[in-house]
Amino acid sequence: MTSGPGTSAHQGSPTSQSHRAVPWSSAITATTDERVFVRGVALDEAMGRETFSAMLLRLWRGDAATEEEADLLGACLVASVDHGPVSPSALVARTIAATRAAPMSGLAGGILAFGELHGAVVSRAMRILAGAPAEAGLQAWADEVFEAERAAGRRLPGVGHRWHHHDLRAERLLEMAAPLSAGRLDSAVRALAARVSRHTGKPVPVNIDGGLAVALTALRLDAAYGDFLFAISRSFGLAAHYVEEQARERPMRTIDPTLAQYDGIAIPGSGGD
Amino acid sequence: MTSGPGTSAHQGSPTSQSHRAVPWSSAITATTDERVFVRGVALDEAMGRETFSAMLLRLWRGDAATEEEADLLGACLVASVDHGPVSPSALVARTIAATRAAPMSGLAGGILAFGELHGAVVSRAMRILAGAPAEAGLQAWADEVFEAERAAGRRLPGVGHRWHHHDLRAERLLEMAAPLSAGRLDSAVRALAARVSRHTGKPVPVNIDGGLAVALTALRLDAAYGDFLFAISRSFGLAAHYVEEQARERPMRTIDPTLAQYDGIAIPGSGGD
Amino acid sequence: MTSGPGTSAHQGSPTSQSHRAVPWSSAITATTDERVFVRGVALDEAMGRETFSAMLLRLWRGDAATEEEADLLGACLVASVDHGPVSPSALVARTIAATRAAPMSGLAGGILAFGELHGAVVSRAMRILAGAPAEAGLQAWADEVFEAERAAGRRLPGVGHRWHHHDLRAERLLEMAAPLSAGRLDSAVRALAARVSRHTGKPVPVNIDGGLAVALTALRLDAAYGDFLFAISRSFGLAAHYVEEQARERPMRTIDPTLAQYDGIAIPGSGGD
Amino acid sequence: MTSGPGTSAHQGSPTSQSHRAVPWSSAITATTDERVFVRGVALDEAMGRETFSAMLLRLWRGDAATEEEADLLGACLVASVDHGPVSPSALVARTIAATRAAPMSGLAGGILAFGELHGAVVSRAMRILAGAPAEAGLQAWADEVFEAERAAGRRLPGVGHRWHHHDLRAERLLEMAAPLSAGRLDSAVRALAARVSRHTGKPVPVNIDGGLAVALTALRLDAAYGDFLFAISRSFGLAAHYVEEQARERPMRTIDPTLAQYDGIAIPGSGGD
Repeated sequence: MTSGPGTSAHQGSPTSQSHRAVPWSSAITATTDERVFVRGVALDEAMGRETFSAMLLRLWRGDAATEEEADLLGACLVASVDHGPVSPSALVARTIAATRAAPMSGLAGGILAFGELHGAVVSRAMRILAGAPAEAGLQAWADEVFEAERAAGRRLPGVGHRWHHHDLRAERLLEMAAPLSAGRLDSAVRALAARVSRHTGKPVPVNIDGGLAVALTALRLDAAYGDFLFAISRSFGLAAHYVEEQARERPMRTIDPTLAQYDGIAIPGSGGD
Repeated sequence: MTSGPGTSAHQGSPTSQSHRAVPWSSAITATTDERVFVRGVALDEAMGRETFSAMLLRLWRGDAATEEEADLLGACLVASVDHGPVSPSALVARTIAATRAAPMSGLAGGILAFGELHGAVVSRAMRILAGAPAEAGLQAWADEVFEAERAAGRRLPGVGHRWHHHDLRAERLLEMAAPLSAGRLDSAVRALAARVSRHTGKPVPVNIDGGLAVALTALRLDAAYGDFLFAISRSFGLAAHYVEEQARERPMRTIDPTLAQYDGIAIPGSGGD
Repeated sequence: MTSGPGTSAHQGSPTSQSHRAVPWSSAITATTDERVFVRGVALDEAMGRETFSAMLLRLWRGDAATEEEADLLGACLVASVDHGPVSPSALVARTIAATRAAPMSGLAGGILAFGELHGAVVSRAMRILAGAPAEAGLQAWADEVFEAERAAGRRLPGVGHRWHHHDLRAERLLEMAAPLSAGRLDSAVRALAARVSRHTGKPVPVNIDGGLAVALTALRLDAAYGDFLFAISRSFGLAAHYVEEQARERPMRTIDPTLAQYDGIAIPGSGGD
Repeated sequence: MTSGPGTSAHQGSPTSQSHRAVPWSSAITATTDERVFVRGVALDEAMGRETFSAMLLRLWRGDAATEEEADLLGACLVASVDHGPVSPSALVARTIAATRAAPMSGLAGGILAFGELHGAVVSRAMRILAGAPAEAGLQAWADEVFEAERAAGRRLPGVGHRWHHHDLRAERLLEMAAPLSAGRLDSAVRALAARVSRHTGKPVPVNIDGGLAVALTALRLDAAYGDFLFAISRSFGLAAHYVEEQARERPMRTIDPTLAQYDGIAIPGSGGD
């Protein structure tokens, strides 16, 4: 049987229902001729009256945020917003900026550098924390988790860092999250840190992924949002690196990450001085 | 002359200096063992004390924001955060979510849908507005700009919309921005809208791109940040669509955008009630 | 201690060696002022004398291909090159084309639709096949693999298909690969198909992923190249969809995948006539 | 008027037709239960009988290729396939590989490095060449094109190169393309090179973009395919760099492009020996 114009792109007997038209629904946003409503709230009414953090929590969780919750989510965004010019994602964004490829290419490219070792860790940490028991069983749980991750060839997320021996951002998140979760999550992540410390023989800090995991879990956000929160906040930093690269450097320059200098506003001496 | 291990990947006489090591600088972020400083401010100190919008303005502009400025930037973020499930970028994010490809793939893919007709327009509008003269010459300037864009085969950015005849988000941004720019930018974008109205014979609203362009210019942000602000804020919405798609729908389902329904929190009647 | 220009972006005591300059090597390509050499072969000398498939095998495997091997790799490329306009990756490329975002955005976006259920399956199938024993132990091995995948919540790759009950591309690959692997891999993938058939109660074909996995393993390619072969070959198809979308359709059109028609060169009747 | 479940995501009066269901067509690929047909040719029948280059030309152009044409397209693919480990796109792919982000992330990220200065140039060169007149008017035309590009702040595509003073790949493409275009396109690109030489005072070679532009135009391919051909062929090289990075180097290593060495198969001495 020959076929020609007017024929479905798949011929014969399609066995999957997937090509029939099926109504589907979304509960996030509705639009009218004049307005956009996110979770039932008109954006124009929220603008200037609700902080962006409060709106974001509403968007992702579906219900209104208390002021304390909005502040905690805002703190998560602040904590993640940048980490300097030689972070892999920033280097990718700069490399793409250097070829004068489009801004969206630089942004998307930088985001694609996030993987299980860099930037796509918070969700996994949240899923682990979700299984934490009450105080009593924490040490056994931490042992189990440590062994399971080790058997799977993975680093335990949420603890340790290549550079920061003591991450004040993580500590601040744990401090701000404590009232919202009765300290339960804080104890859980510290139990994991203690277990890793036993293994390495050195003190091991709760890192930014652990701090974010505790905070976002205390905010009752779906674990999937952990990596999104980090990546999208960091995107604001990637944008700054893209813009600075094009403003300061000539096109197609070779970027040597070992020769990056800081020439911005003076910062105080490192902690412990 | 044979070559082998220990040899530079490019042989012969490299004529470009690009492969010599050259120190370079960035003024955005410095890190120590304990802290991350963005534009000289320790993130851990800002967390819970500065809103994310204030920190973002500092990151992108380099100096501190007034409370009014931070509120305006926050309003820009709120205005852009989502526009429903059948926006091209949301459809891309959902299509990728349906194949169960990774979250970062969904995010980056959705961002790549932003182009000159959808989501990558604000920067261009900012650059056009940057050339606006004082009130007196506005109509002539609007005529010039209109003709130039038409000659280049481009739509004038900042005015008109496929759906929204009157965009309350745009009006709200113009209202909030007015004190920061003495209304000059507001007059400019309205002059452009008036010029297009003369052409189409119908009233033409200032749209969200125009509102964002006025607000971000009033905030003294580099025009490059226009598209980044929109895209990164919208990314929070894309994340919500990715998560909802995976939570509600089976893998590899066919997404028919003409059958999308809203089943979220009830919204008030459409405009004109 | 204050800091300022001329200071490393990371201050304090970096504990990681990662920021020291370390020489590194690559064995793939060297360039001179006049030429590019891939695995020691000058591209200008290969052009018009070696097929692209032969050069690709050299690039990915490191050594020269026989004519039979080059033909088999070429067959893998042909088999993967496209699968119609409503494949998720093609829909993403078209959606991005519709917004008039750049060609590279359409290409990268389409690639990002490849995930564990669509297009990023061949590598996993190759890794499974790599563990297949000699003929004698195949049934037991197939049972083990089936149970392991089921326990992990995954579909067994290489067998079955949503539409194609009998995939002639897969059969052709098995036929062409047989001389190169003494039929051992062919038996292995058929043992997996038989095990799944026992489970479903219906005949289950070896699918294109299984055919590619057998062929690429017979070609002694690293399993990592399985997904790359599929994705990059399919990219040529994505490009065709991007170009056709922009040539035929107006910008920002809504793409309804349930209404896609075929209006190309007439094809013979479906199998079984 | 309140709204709730069962309601369209856009309420009020949609002014665009874009959300109505409209049948659409594609002429590229049709599928049946057993087969995939590209431009009317069953892939399983082409496998092992047609080279991939011949199938690609059919896919992109719509009609069958002569053997000479298929060889020329194959030569274009070979010419573009890689350019070493410190090409910006390869560096991006390696940076993403180093974070152990997924293969598709590395591939898409590398592709996003292609912009108007690197890898996304061929289409523009093809569009310029399409306007070339017969031999007589070539010098005037070259002058016009040069001035137009200069006025637009752009480099003339197709001529010159940062490293290669004389690109044998480009020469080979011109040689292979000549019979297919009666040398007309060859003369055109050489006229452009001559015009640039007058400006710089030095001999300027036709570069790989110019060679590809001539070849792909001689093959009667749409100019849009120029950048796609280059990018997708180069993707095979990006895959090799991704795989090698993960095979040889530890995760999260710092990549210093100034310290890249070649340790592959020995190559002959540089040109002029």
